[in-house]
Amino acid sequence: MKNYTNICLVIAMRAEAQPLIDALQLVEDSSFCPGLPMRAWTGEYRNIQLSLVINGKDPETGLDLIGTQAATLATQFAIDKFDPQLIVNAGTAGAFGENGAKIGDVFLSRDHVVFHDRRVPIAGWDKQSIGYFPVLDVSDLTSLGFKMGVVTTGNSLDMPEHDEENIRKIGGEIKEMEAAAVAWVARLHQVPLFCVKAVTDLMDSGIPTHEEFDQNLKLATENLQKGVTKIIDFLAT
Amino acid sequence: MKNYTNICLVIAMRAEAQPLIDALQLVEDSSFCPGLPMRAWTGEYRNIQLSLVINGKDPETGLDLIGTQAATLATQFAIDKFDPQLIVNAGTAGAFGENGAKIGDVFLSRDHVVFHDRRVPIAGWDKQSIGYFPVLDVSDLTSLGFKMGVVTTGNSLDMPEHDEENIRKIGGEIKEMEAAAVAWVARLHQVPLFCVKAVTDLMDSGIPTHEEFDQNLKLATENLQKGVTKIIDFLAT
Repeated sequence: MKNYTNICLVIAMRAEAQPLIDALQLVEDSSFCPGLPMRAWTGEYRNIQLSLVINGKDPETGLDLIGTQAATLATQFAIDKFDPQLIVNAGTAGAFGENGAKIGDVFLSRDHVVFHDRRVPIAGWDKQSIGYFPVLDVSDLTSLGFKMGVVTTGNSLDMPEHDEENIRKIGGEIKEMEAAAVAWVARLHQVPLFCVKAVTDLMDSGIPTHEEFDQNLKLATENLQKGVTKIIDFLAT
Repeated sequence: MKNYTNICLVIAMRAEAQPLIDALQLVEDSSFCPGLPMRAWTGEYRNIQLSLVINGKDPETGLDLIGTQAATLATQFAIDKFDPQLIVNAGTAGAFGENGAKIGDVFLSRDHVVFHDRRVPIAGWDKQSIGYFPVLDVSDLTSLGFKMGVVTTGNSLDMPEHDEENIRKIGGEIKEMEAAAVAWVARLHQVPLFCVKAVTDLMDSGIPTHEEFDQNLKLATENLQKGVTKIIDFLAT
């Protein structure tokens, strides 16, 4: 892997980001996005300039912004401000137990990131809607103990039959709510990207996703922090 | 309605925008979004500064960008560049024949704009995901011959049972692919917004949406142009 010295972590929720902010001793950049919810922290790790951007909170509800709209803006602002050579989209996700995934596993993205809830049955637009945004080949990093899978994005926490069918058709293994939006904006700016996703829930467990998410968020974000820190350490010289 | 002197039209596709660019004699602003697909045109109509922003084309496929990601960025760039007092999200859409809608009808948004393909069954996030972004009350404009309806947004052209159920539950009457994203960004910046949507297809006609869309795009975009021009004329002094 190329020697990246300016890396931006794009993360949806504060709870997913905080262990990393602490471990990497990042400091908030209060000049980021004045008047808008998105927030950024920066720091240095050996030879690497780090930035970390989150979606921030909905000004009306006070809840963390999740999903692809907020991720689109956060990524655009991150690129505008920090001009990174590499974007790492980190977060929590669901996975399929039948593929051998376990709660707390940390996956890296493989091949491409896709949208599983965009259906436009017109030649050309069908493929464009799914996206198939290429991700950086990070198979070198599996030696650090990661699994790999195709990351698939949609704006819903549940997985009705219709979405499941799409996820299986496009080979999705990790289901979450932001990666394809981050990857789309990264590709527009030709910034390479990969994803690191820690498993909070197994889509085929029979337990509602939001219950598993609540139960396992702490474990998953701890493992996410350890995983991303190992990657930064591997990339630093 | 307030006297707006700086209005931005946010439109997804070039084919939807071109009749308006021609009728309003707008000129392209080539300084808009260098290196990115989004494009803008500007002009004056009596006392009104007009801008018109489209998503532009996917650099990989050459096809028009549609859907909520592109609309999010286009709206952000539109606000950054033109600082409008009012955003009008104009475009084509589907409607329900059972509600009396006909192909070519032009609808104005009523009450709020919603997402119909975001399901997050956690208290607070459920409502936040649907959005319910308020729209400007434009009932004064119905005297110009418009119908009104709740505009509902998703990233798919089809309407599987799951989406239809959501659309009916949230009272959606006009189904399209960008409005809620435009409205979300507009609300972040506290810019008032309403939508003007010309009907290309009836969701309950039994004919696949993309066939009706192709057949009726010309009629709908002509009616959209006439409708938006009438509104600009009404707002100008």
